[in-house]
Amino acid sequence: MGKALIIGAGGVASVVVHKCCEVPDVFEEICIASRTKSKCDALKDKLDGGRTKIQTAQVDADNVPELVALINEFKPDIVINVALPYQDLTIMDACLETNVDYLDTANYEPLDTAKFEYKWQWAYKEKFEQAGITALLGSGFDPGVTGVFSAYALKHYFDEIHTIDIVDANAGDHGYPFATNFNPEINIREITANGRYYENGEFIETEPLEVKRVYDLPEIGPKDVYLLYHEELESLAKNITGVNKIRFWMTFSEKYLMHLRVLENVGMTSIEPIEFEGQQIVPLQFLKAVLPDPASLGPRTKGKTNIGCIYQGTKDGEPKTYYVYNICDHQECYREVGSQAISYTTGVPAMIGAMMMLTGKWKKPGVFNIEEFDPDPFMDALNKYGLPWHEDFNPTLID
Amino acid sequence: MGKALIIGAGGVASVVVHKCCEVPDVFEEICIASRTKSKCDALKDKLDGGRTKIQTAQVDADNVPELVALINEFKPDIVINVALPYQDLTIMDACLETNVDYLDTANYEPLDTAKFEYKWQWAYKEKFEQAGITALLGSGFDPGVTGVFSAYALKHYFDEIHTIDIVDANAGDHGYPFATNFNPEINIREITANGRYYENGEFIETEPLEVKRVYDLPEIGPKDVYLLYHEELESLAKNITGVNKIRFWMTFSEKYLMHLRVLENVGMTSIEPIEFEGQQIVPLQFLKAVLPDPASLGPRTKGKTNIGCIYQGTKDGEPKTYYVYNICDHQECYREVGSQAISYTTGVPAMIGAMMMLTGKWKKPGVFNIEEFDPDPFMDALNKYGLPWHEDFNPTLID
Repeated sequence: MGKALIIGAGGVASVVVHKCCEVPDVFEEICIASRTKSKCDALKDKLDGGRTKIQTAQVDADNVPELVALINEFKPDIVINVALPYQDLTIMDACLETNVDYLDTANYEPLDTAKFEYKWQWAYKEKFEQAGITALLGSGFDPGVTGVFSAYALKHYFDEIHTIDIVDANAGDHGYPFATNFNPEINIREITANGRYYENGEFIETEPLEVKRVYDLPEIGPKDVYLLYHEELESLAKNITGVNKIRFWMTFSEKYLMHLRVLENVGMTSIEPIEFEGQQIVPLQFLKAVLPDPASLGPRTKGKTNIGCIYQGTKDGEPKTYYVYNICDHQECYREVGSQAISYTTGVPAMIGAMMMLTGKWKKPGVFNIEEFDPDPFMDALNKYGLPWHEDFNPTLID
Repeated sequence: MGKALIIGAGGVASVVVHKCCEVPDVFEEICIASRTKSKCDALKDKLDGGRTKIQTAQVDADNVPELVALINEFKPDIVINVALPYQDLTIMDACLETNVDYLDTANYEPLDTAKFEYKWQWAYKEKFEQAGITALLGSGFDPGVTGVFSAYALKHYFDEIHTIDIVDANAGDHGYPFATNFNPEINIREITANGRYYENGEFIETEPLEVKRVYDLPEIGPKDVYLLYHEELESLAKNITGVNKIRFWMTFSEKYLMHLRVLENVGMTSIEPIEFEGQQIVPLQFLKAVLPDPASLGPRTKGKTNIGCIYQGTKDGEPKTYYVYNICDHQECYREVGSQAISYTTGVPAMIGAMMMLTGKWKKPGVFNIEEFDPDPFMDALNKYGLPWHEDFNPTLID
């Protein structure tokens, strides 16, 4: 049916490639491209031999002419961007120049400000409309599936949604006293940034980790959840008409927070170089070298993730609640695609989003967040491709 | 009256030099010697101009012939060893070869085993007896004043001492989330070593920090105290006849322990080098470079130390208890000698011990621990030279 250019060769890209190869009728040909071609080749070697034809390429995703040349050569029907969020705009520019659909999983962040905001990408709306191509923003799990869940809840169960609580729980245990799934700098930023939630038309700031609850999650049990800002709050507040409260909650264990705080306290998370034996060394870089390699966590992580949304609203004039969530098992993911649940829950929805676009189910000119499309075919695909969801019409609410 | 060779130029040495200069009738001449002569010169510059004549020298305290040459040149009446505990034996050897009295503040440790034991130094007893010279071991605070307190308690208040509890509390606050007063390797060793106490003729091991109490210390308040092994337990068990239980307790705050444990967990206290940007770097060395310089803590440390001993025993057939302790204020110490209470409480007793020997009050051939001498003149000197002590005849006991 079509050709996809996949930019990136990390954990999420690996899941996307695995999953595309499961649907060779849709993904007839793919090209895996990243700065380091050997990583792309390693992925190709693992998956070659199925019906999906795989090729690889070297590309610098910061460089629009290089991207344009690659697109002109491979002639994809869609570009799946699972590179770094700093590279969203260059890849969108290349798609505009070549008239190819675009999909990503995380919104653009300028390298220097570390701000989550859609404004830069939303600014491309008119250009994409004029070019007659589609950009689908944030087709991971959160953002991504959380938006699909919201559209689905509104379509089938509510006349009005008033409150959305997104709860993201990772109960995985890698068996180390401390390790990070990804860049510790991002971990630090998560817990030191102010929280923010949406209420009555405005965003309200909280101190970092100021708002904490305990929530008893299906198949995981009671966990500390902390109110954070997360990028889908911005688009949901705009797209889910009538909603007046949206909060995002993430689990952190006391032990994890304690480790991060101590490392911050002693200066080990600083990005200011210090003088050491005549050399300039960045403490955070040295800490990364001391900590377990994130790539080593996959095979040893046990336990599950549970990510879902709790809705409160009305149907036929009656108050109504609804909780829809996915549970994902780290070890099962690893057995299936060689990555644990963190990458899996992001990669599968990226493949599904691309499938929606390639099959013409989601296709309209412009720049869109995921909740702006019909959720039903995506919800079906989640059940089919590894992220089945569960419903609870009488969930515990978060006060 | 005499000449003292002071070996060492660190925090404790600095206090010793300051205090010797307060008693020029006893310390007519001193020589400050260490591997780095510039540190000795800096001390001399600070204190020159009083009645005590000061000179400096470069010496490698691991090297007996160098030490002998220096002693033969300066001709001291006593060598005050405030260098590293690894260097006790080479300095004792040099004293034997030159027939000069010896004093130190901490017992010899072989570099590779990190074991506190007096056996190596006690083995010198006969040689010192034959040479007709005195070695006074452990003339700091603990060991040191704790032994003097014990001899004093036995001499004046008890017929028999049954139990000794030594309580060492540092309630100083340097205002950093975490810093160490000295080598973090030693801090780590303290909390990861098994505890040990003396009871009924034998030493009983505990798990690291297994035994914890809360003790309400005068002028400091209630603190967590943990049972540790400390070197004076070995000599007190031998010298305080009839004692059947000796324990040593040290305060650690929950915050301090948490920081040390996290740093250990993530591998930052490891002494195994790791590969970093093509170089071999020892994580503990890098941690030291990131942490505040211990030398910077002095001027900013507020609060007090309280170190003392609680005795239980009998007098005239009646049960009796006695608590004797010193309280030392970090900032007052710093104002007086430019070092905080940790160095001050060790350096002052070193000077007093040397004064006891130079004035002939404590002088007999052999190798002795401090509790083997008459405590009264030393107790008087403590009051006079900055470490006044307080008594309580009805203290709270530790169960």
